[in-house]
Amino acid sequence: MKRPFPSILLTAAALVGMATALPAAAQFAKPEDAIKYRKAAFTVMAAHFGRVAAMANGKAPFDAKAAADNAEIATTMSKLPFAGFVDGSDKGETKAKPEIWAEMDKFRAGATKMQDAMVAFNTAAKGGNLDAIKAATGEVGKACKGCHDTYRKE
Amino acid sequence: MKRPFPSILLTAAALVGMATALPAAAQFAKPEDAIKYRKAAFTVMAAHFGRVAAMANGKAPFDAKAAADNAEIATTMSKLPFAGFVDGSDKGETKAKPEIWAEMDKFRAGATKMQDAMVAFNTAAKGGNLDAIKAATGEVGKACKGCHDTYRKE
Repeated sequence: MKRPFPSILLTAAALVGMATALPAAAQFAKPEDAIKYRKAAFTVMAAHFGRVAAMANGKAPFDAKAAADNAEIATTMSKLPFAGFVDGSDKGETKAKPEIWAEMDKFRAGATKMQDAMVAFNTAAKGGNLDAIKAATGEVGKACKGCHDTYRKE
Repeated sequence: MKRPFPSILLTAAALVGMATALPAAAQFAKPEDAIKYRKAAFTVMAAHFGRVAAMANGKAPFDAKAAADNAEIATTMSKLPFAGFVDGSDKGETKAKPEIWAEMDKFRAGATKMQDAMVAFNTAAKGGNLDAIKAATGEVGKACKGCHDTYRKE
């Protein structure tokens, strides 16, 4: 069976796992801080991912260097927001549904799926092949949508 | 004369310069998007810097691994927000003073000073010496305050 990712990517994915495993305790003084943080991390991630997606969708001219640079930042950002889904941060200025905390393992699995798709997307962006970037962009988009449909309020 | 930074740091600083030199054109569809983006990048940077600053100030127990991890993220984040100070983004949901656009070169010099201080801070955090981290944290704090005093509304 062909392995879907070379070992360097599996290592990167493991590092992503480590980053999300940072102790959440004492990282945020108040639940509002955690909410503000995770929204900010998603905002930055979406801005950089969106620039590559615009190229993939033909809405912006393809620029291989800009695609690689933005994919790198989006991938770094993808590791961050989930530390912000701490206990007590289901209330307040957030579209996060309470289901997240009721089924945290499932939610985290969705996050990991997105992070893995982002690592593959980053590799594709560095490769500079637009067709590969289009395919990888679609996979990230699906992973984003998968969680948004289930866990984000309209 | 002793050089204040080893060449690896000068290289890192040059890379920071490259990142901020990404073409701003077409990066944001609307000025509001640029404002939201830069605020988000500052929020994430401040969260990670703040965790190390809390250790430096004795408000949190020193954890060398966490300090190094958080400093790395803060340093990556420090490269991002300034791309969001695009023309027309002086109005709206922002505390940015119009002086920024009137003296953009001076503002950018302040940004570079903060980014350079962050690179030195990251090196100190990786070194694991709390006294060095305290000193480097103070330098970053001064660089932040330098711009906030001049360019940020209360």
